[in-house]
Amino acid sequence: MDEIKIGLVGLGTVGSSVLKMVTENSDKVQNITGRNLSIKTVVVRNVAKHQAEVPAGVTVTDDLNTIVDDPEIKIVVEVMGGVHPAKEVITALLNAKKHVVTANKDLIASAGEELAALAKQNHCDLMYEASVAGGIPILRTIVTSFAADYITEVKGIVNGTTNYILTQMQRKHWSYDQALMKAQELGFAESDPTNDVEGIDAAYKMVILSQFSYGTHIKLSNMAVEGISTIQQADVQQADAFGYTIKLLGIARRIDDGVFAEVGPVLVPQDHPLATINNENNAVMVTGQAVGETLFYGPGAGGLPTANSVLSDIVSVTKNIVLGTTGNSFNNYQSQVGKVDPRDVIYPYYLSLKMLDAPGEMLKFTQIMTQIGASFSQIVQTKNDDQTARVVIITHEMSKAQLSDLKTSLSQINTISLLAAYKVL
Amino acid sequence: MDEIKIGLVGLGTVGSSVLKMVTENSDKVQNITGRNLSIKTVVVRNVAKHQAEVPAGVTVTDDLNTIVDDPEIKIVVEVMGGVHPAKEVITALLNAKKHVVTANKDLIASAGEELAALAKQNHCDLMYEASVAGGIPILRTIVTSFAADYITEVKGIVNGTTNYILTQMQRKHWSYDQALMKAQELGFAESDPTNDVEGIDAAYKMVILSQFSYGTHIKLSNMAVEGISTIQQADVQQADAFGYTIKLLGIARRIDDGVFAEVGPVLVPQDHPLATINNENNAVMVTGQAVGETLFYGPGAGGLPTANSVLSDIVSVTKNIVLGTTGNSFNNYQSQVGKVDPRDVIYPYYLSLKMLDAPGEMLKFTQIMTQIGASFSQIVQTKNDDQTARVVIITHEMSKAQLSDLKTSLSQINTISLLAAYKVL
Repeated sequence: MDEIKIGLVGLGTVGSSVLKMVTENSDKVQNITGRNLSIKTVVVRNVAKHQAEVPAGVTVTDDLNTIVDDPEIKIVVEVMGGVHPAKEVITALLNAKKHVVTANKDLIASAGEELAALAKQNHCDLMYEASVAGGIPILRTIVTSFAADYITEVKGIVNGTTNYILTQMQRKHWSYDQALMKAQELGFAESDPTNDVEGIDAAYKMVILSQFSYGTHIKLSNMAVEGISTIQQADVQQADAFGYTIKLLGIARRIDDGVFAEVGPVLVPQDHPLATINNENNAVMVTGQAVGETLFYGPGAGGLPTANSVLSDIVSVTKNIVLGTTGNSFNNYQSQVGKVDPRDVIYPYYLSLKMLDAPGEMLKFTQIMTQIGASFSQIVQTKNDDQTARVVIITHEMSKAQLSDLKTSLSQINTISLLAAYKVL
Repeated sequence: MDEIKIGLVGLGTVGSSVLKMVTENSDKVQNITGRNLSIKTVVVRNVAKHQAEVPAGVTVTDDLNTIVDDPEIKIVVEVMGGVHPAKEVITALLNAKKHVVTANKDLIASAGEELAALAKQNHCDLMYEASVAGGIPILRTIVTSFAADYITEVKGIVNGTTNYILTQMQRKHWSYDQALMKAQELGFAESDPTNDVEGIDAAYKMVILSQFSYGTHIKLSNMAVEGISTIQQADVQQADAFGYTIKLLGIARRIDDGVFAEVGPVLVPQDHPLATINNENNAVMVTGQAVGETLFYGPGAGGLPTANSVLSDIVSVTKNIVLGTTGNSFNNYQSQVGKVDPRDVIYPYYLSLKMLDAPGEMLKFTQIMTQIGASFSQIVQTKNDDQTARVVIITHEMSKAQLSDLKTSLSQINTISLLAAYKVL
């Protein structure tokens, strides 16, 4: 049987799982592709540290050129992470006519178009299923199964760390800090958790999902991104009392000719499928004009689940090599989209306010709401401390423009402060 | 731009939605495939009846040969349903070197292998994503995204009619007959609902899912299939009190070297993702050795969702035509599996019994359970009528062999009858 040799750059959690799967599951891959796949060379920074983890017969080196210059290696998996030097590594590999599979969301979100063009120019495949939602096969599904449908919304829980933290805050009534510490202990959060907890990782994934869903590149700088680090236990409990669970959602919605994309905490009704996605799991909900609502759920991270997505890319590339059809873009949907008017982005909002506990304060607030044309659906007032009250409101539908007006008006009143404003699904 | 002409056989709910989608979404399909797709000819039984539904320029005929003999038509969609004459139609089309897309689960479950071989022989594509779970893109996902993983279990709600009925029985406390009548009124159940309510339709889908998941053909005659028509409102309420929802599940599990497949009512814990799938929706849960648990949820039927799956097949065939790679099997995983020993199929069971309300009856039953080595986890006794009691039990894990022994022993006691025995997830 013909052999296809693979190179591997990076041997962390995902890399070693890729090595394990290629070795242990070769039977099934052979059965499906008619080719015998094996890892020939692994590139790591510290050879001595990793030598023992690699089976006999596999070369371990710190020199990328061992792969670049090896004509026998057809496919290379990049799982080192980060934008640099991963970008330079992939560029060198594509220029050496290697097909590349990567799990690198930071890189694909920031330089995906450029690298895809380079791959095409070299008649190479560049695939990155593992870059979004770990083990959930969402990108290839959008490419193949929504090819003829117009996607109207793609939204979901695309960061496992924050979902783990929010699940613990909900179930165990822990504070954000306690839950974060536990997540770090268990390895679900990094020692510097900024990228995850501030929503940046989720935003990268929404950039890629938007590209696949709408054929357009949304810049991270054009996206409102809010994380979970300021969510109070009181908000989690109040949301629960209203019948909602707070989730960090990425949302990319088609509104008229534009695409609106945002990452932030959202109140999800407790009987909504996204409310039942707990711990480090991810789920992506895709709404199509024809198909309606669909949901894809699975592990959002972890070595083997992510490795499975890498392997599905390797199998696709292998099939393309066998059929002589390499060099086509992973996603070739291209479309022009316009700007979205903030007056057209409409949700109910959860507002949490601290106000001076004195006569007339609530009147002030109500007057502002009336001025901007917004109204209340539910309202709860509790004591905050001796001087102040905590007022929590769920509004009727209002636009982002109205919310912005509200924030401006409130900023001029020093006895009322807006602690949180979250969309309600 | 190059054109690809399509033939359509059948113009029911799915057929007219396919016609609509091909016509209205041609922009996106062009963008992705670089080809202009259009329906040229529609074959129906009654031309006069359907003439008005078809746009100008599309030929309507009752003669299949109009398509068979037309060299311009490359792809044909079969959505007439049923095994005959659909099988003869597809055979004629493949022999005329037409690529075929079908939504016909009955036919694929019973003659899929034969037709796939014929397609291969004619270097044609034969695709049938729409045959399982309507709008959920599950088959192609298994082919592409689980290519390198070993699937250990595929289970799910794959029949919308029964899920609609069970949802109403649960929410509105309707009897099975009431819920069925409502489903028929709303068009979710046919006037002869046998195929759906007796689990046969779900079994067809499990045959196809097993083929894709395990590379093996399970005969319908080798599968235990139980429907929902004997489920009592009392069982629904008792399950609810125990914290479960009754769902009609298809389950295909790898046990050692074999595959165990079954369709029947199952008690699903209320916080399990499958318990939250309501009304006519479907969901398929795929567990892979590497990836773990994943779930795919969406509309299980309906014109447009099913048409979307048909369109995803049409786009795949079109890409293959463009790339010159037609004639490969939709699913080319082949594997030998052994038999499963009923002693190795282990679940907790929900047992519902009617027994004479007299001293010693419960003792008899307890003695039988002890003899077969099974034990209770929960037990509730209520009055059934003046003479009899209703005893409902959730057992600890027991094997299918033990369940079979229990049934044999109980059949010899005329004061105790087993009304229901459902697996518990």
